[in-house]
Amino acid sequence: ISLKGDETKYPFPVIEDAKKRIEDVLEIDAKGEDNHVPRDPRLLRLTGAHPFNAEAPLSLLYDTGFLTPAAIHFVRNHGPVPKVQDEEILNWEISIEGMVQNPMVLTLRDLISEFTQYTVPITLVCAGNRRKEQNMVKKGAGFNWGAAGISNSLWTGAMLGDVIRKAKPHRKARFVWMEGADNPANGAYGTCVRLPWVLDPERSIMLAYKQNGCLLEPDHGKPLRVVIPGVIGGRSVKWLKKLIVAETPSTNWYHYFDNKVLPTMVTPEEAKANKEWWKDERYTVYNLNIQSIIVYPENRELMQFKDINSESNETYPVRGFAYNGGGIRVGRVEISLDRGKSWRLAEIDYPEDKYRDAGIFELFGGEVNVCERMSYLCWCFWKIDVKKIELKNAKDIVVRAMDENMCVQPRDMYWNVTSMLNNWWYRVAVQSEENGAIRFEHPVHATKGGNNGGWMDRIKAEGGNILSRTWGEKEGDDNQDENEG
Amino acid sequence: ISLKGDETKYPFPVIEDAKKRIEDVLEIDAKGEDNHVPRDPRLLRLTGAHPFNAEAPLSLLYDTGFLTPAAIHFVRNHGPVPKVQDEEILNWEISIEGMVQNPMVLTLRDLISEFTQYTVPITLVCAGNRRKEQNMVKKGAGFNWGAAGISNSLWTGAMLGDVIRKAKPHRKARFVWMEGADNPANGAYGTCVRLPWVLDPERSIMLAYKQNGCLLEPDHGKPLRVVIPGVIGGRSVKWLKKLIVAETPSTNWYHYFDNKVLPTMVTPEEAKANKEWWKDERYTVYNLNIQSIIVYPENRELMQFKDINSESNETYPVRGFAYNGGGIRVGRVEISLDRGKSWRLAEIDYPEDKYRDAGIFELFGGEVNVCERMSYLCWCFWKIDVKKIELKNAKDIVVRAMDENMCVQPRDMYWNVTSMLNNWWYRVAVQSEENGAIRFEHPVHATKGGNNGGWMDRIKAEGGNILSRTWGEKEGDDNQDENEG
Repeated sequence: ISLKGDETKYPFPVIEDAKKRIEDVLEIDAKGEDNHVPRDPRLLRLTGAHPFNAEAPLSLLYDTGFLTPAAIHFVRNHGPVPKVQDEEILNWEISIEGMVQNPMVLTLRDLISEFTQYTVPITLVCAGNRRKEQNMVKKGAGFNWGAAGISNSLWTGAMLGDVIRKAKPHRKARFVWMEGADNPANGAYGTCVRLPWVLDPERSIMLAYKQNGCLLEPDHGKPLRVVIPGVIGGRSVKWLKKLIVAETPSTNWYHYFDNKVLPTMVTPEEAKANKEWWKDERYTVYNLNIQSIIVYPENRELMQFKDINSESNETYPVRGFAYNGGGIRVGRVEISLDRGKSWRLAEIDYPEDKYRDAGIFELFGGEVNVCERMSYLCWCFWKIDVKKIELKNAKDIVVRAMDENMCVQPRDMYWNVTSMLNNWWYRVAVQSEENGAIRFEHPVHATKGGNNGGWMDRIKAEGGNILSRTWGEKEGDDNQDENEG
Repeated sequence: ISLKGDETKYPFPVIEDAKKRIEDVLEIDAKGEDNHVPRDPRLLRLTGAHPFNAEAPLSLLYDTGFLTPAAIHFVRNHGPVPKVQDEEILNWEISIEGMVQNPMVLTLRDLISEFTQYTVPITLVCAGNRRKEQNMVKKGAGFNWGAAGISNSLWTGAMLGDVIRKAKPHRKARFVWMEGADNPANGAYGTCVRLPWVLDPERSIMLAYKQNGCLLEPDHGKPLRVVIPGVIGGRSVKWLKKLIVAETPSTNWYHYFDNKVLPTMVTPEEAKANKEWWKDERYTVYNLNIQSIIVYPENRELMQFKDINSESNETYPVRGFAYNGGGIRVGRVEISLDRGKSWRLAEIDYPEDKYRDAGIFELFGGEVNVCERMSYLCWCFWKIDVKKIELKNAKDIVVRAMDENMCVQPRDMYWNVTSMLNNWWYRVAVQSEENGAIRFEHPVHATKGGNNGGWMDRIKAEGGNILSRTWGEKEGDDNQDENEG
C-alpha cells in the first residue's frame, strides 16, 4: 500500500496550492496538549488557545478558490488532538459492531486494500457557522463563528456504506453511531447518522484518510475520519475508532446535548432546566440548510466616487458563495438593494460540475466518480455586477439563495439556544463616508475579541433593534412604505 | 389475480369511510367528454366545467382525517379523462424503454403477479397549492388553488424501482420519463423523475392501481398511475402508458413549460418571450417545500365574547395541517400572535407513525412496510390551545413550519410566474365585529369566482400593500416598532 499516490494527473488547476502543508507548531500551542499539531497562523482562533476552533478570514477562504487547503480549513475540536505517529497510521484500528451479522475490526490498511477507494470533493460546514450574528441578538450556548466555518476539499478513502454493507446490518437497524479517539470533557466525542443515508451512493459518506492528496492533518482527524457531505460538520467524526450499528440514535453526550436547533421560544434557562428538549430527535440537526454569503464588498471596504458621476455605468462585482445540505443543488442566488422589495438574479458557477463532466478518473489513489451521481456536495460561487452608483444609493445589499427544492433563506433570524444553522438573509450595510465615499459593513467580523466594525455592533451601540424590518437602522422614510399600495 | 382484496384486517379506524365511492355522473359533466366520470358534488371546481380541476373545501378535507377518500381527493387534469372499461383493466399495457438492457411491455396483470405489491400511505400535493394568494398579488400563468390542493390516501401497487431495476438501466441513465394516455392540448402529458430517487426505497415511488383499497377512479388515473411521494403532484403521471429511461430530463411540452418556479423577477411577458428560462432544470420543481395551513378558525368564522371577560382562561384550539417534500419530516409548527416577534410551539400528531409502529402487515393485496424506512411521506396535524382573549387582542394568527433540515417557511412571498410552491406564512386576520365579537379571515377562499371575504380581497379593496410587513393593514402603531430596541 502506498500512502503517496500524488503523481496522479489532475485535470484542473490549483491542486498544488491545496496540497501545501504546514510544518510549524505555533508558539501558542507549544506548551499545551496540542504541541504536536502544526497550524497556520492565518486561522482566526475563536475560543482562545485551547481547544482549537478556528476559521479562515472570509476573503482568504474565498480567494483561495474551490479547494480549501487543510492549512486554512475550518477546525472544530472539543478537546486535545489525539497524537498519532506516522508509523502507526496503517495499523490504526476501527471496530464495526452492534446490530450487524459480521462484527469486524479493520485496520486502515484493510480499509485501503479491501474496499474500493474514492476521491470526492466535499464541502464541510460547521452547524454554528454565522453563530456570532445570533449571539449579537441574544447570547446562546455556543461560541462565535463568523461566516467562514465552511471549507471544501478532496477527500480520499472507502465509502462507509461499503464497509457497513460488508458487516451486514440487521433489518431493524436505522443508525450508524460513530466514536472518536479524542477525550473531551464529556467522554469520547460521538454521534450518529442515518443508515439509509450511509447506504445511499448519492450521499457519498466516506471513511477518509487523505485530504487533498495528503495524509490527514491532526486537526482533521489523523489518521482516519468520517466525512458526511451535506450534513453539519459535527457528524463527521474525526480520529475514528468505533462504528456501532443501532436501531436508535446515539446516546453519546455530544449527540444529545449539542448539534440541535431547539424551538426558538426555548430560552437558555429552559434548555438547561428541562433535558427533554434535548432528547427530541426532530430537533437534531443533520442536513445543512440553504445558505449564501456576501464576501465582496468586504467588511470595512471603502468605495470612492471621486471620478464617478451619477450617469456612470461603472460596475462592481458583488460576489460570494452559497451552499446547501442533503445533496440538493443551490438553484439560484438573488440580491436585493431595496430590502427585499425587488431582487436581481446572480450568476452561479458550480466548479463541482467540472468533476461531474470529467467522467471517471483516478486521483490520489481513489476513483473520482462524481459523474455517477446527481447530488451536489460542494459549495458554489455567485457573482453579479452592480453599478457603483446603485450601491451608493442603496442602504444595504442583502443576498438569499433558494435550493432546487424551492427552500429559500428566510428574512427572519431563527434564534435558537445553540445558535445553529443561522441562515437569515446575509446583509451588508452601506454607510456614507466623507467626500461622497461609502463604506460597507458585514454583520459581524469573526474573531474572539471585538466586533471590528460590523453593522450589528453599531446598531447595538445605537440602541436599535437588529430584528426589525430595517435591521435597526433609524430611517424615518422607510416606515411610510408599510401601507403603500 | 383478485382485484378485490378488501377483506384484509386493517389495524386503524376510518378505512371504511375512505373507501366510500361515488357512483353518479354530475349534470355538468353529462354532456361533455368526461361523461363517464363520477364525481363528488362537494368538490370545488377551479377551472369551470372542463378540464376538471378541483379541491375539497378546506374544513371538509381536514375533518375527514388522515385518509382522504378518492371522492374528495384533489384533481388536476389537463384534458378529457381517458375512458377505460373495467374488463380492460388487467390487460392495460405499459412499455419500459430507452436506456435499458431489457426493454419490456407489461400488462397490469404482469405488474401485479410478477412484482411484490405494497400498500403505502402517501400525501400528494399540487405544485399550485395556495396559488390564489399569489394571483391576488399579481396574476401569473395559472388558475386559482386555495389551500386544499393536497390529499392523502393508501396506494397499492408495485414499486417503480423494482420494475426499472428489472429492465436494467444503463450506467449513464439519470431520469425516468413517464407518459400518460390522455391527450390534452400539447400532446400526451409527460414528465420525468430522477432515477436515483426511483431506486431509493426511502422514496417509495409506486405504480399504483388501487387507492384506499378500490381500483383507481378515472380522475385518479384508472387503471394505472405513478405515485411519487414528497414530489409535486404534477410528476405523478396518471393513465400511465410509457416509461422511458434516459440520460437527460423529459422533452415533453408539459415538462418544459409547466411545474417550474422561475426566478421572481421573471415577469409573465419575459417568460413568454424567452424560452430559455423554461429549459433551466434548476427551476424545475420536484420536491415539495415545507408548508403549514391553518384550518380552524375557518374563513369568516365568528367568535363571540358575550360571556367571556378579560380574566377568562377559556381557550380555542387553533389547528391545521402541515406537510413537506423529499421524505423529510415536519419538525415543528409555530404560531405567532404578534406578527413574528414571538412564537408558540404547537403539538404535532403524525398518523403515519401509527403505520410505522404497526410493523409489516398485508392490506388490499399489498405489504405495508412503513416500518422499514425513515422517511415521512404523509401530512401531519398540528394544534395549539390559545386563550380566546388573546385571539381578540391579536391582529392575526400566522403559522410557519420548519422541517428536520431546519428549512423554515419564509415570511415573504416568493412570487413567480407559475405561482407554484407558495409557502409564505399562512395568515389568518382577526377583524372586530359588533358586540365585541371577532371574525377570522383566511387569505383567500377557494372557488373559481369571487373571493368570499378573504383578507387579501379586503386589503386590495382598501388599496393596501399585501406584501408589506403589516400585510397591508393600516395600523399606525406598528410603524413605531421599527426602531425599538
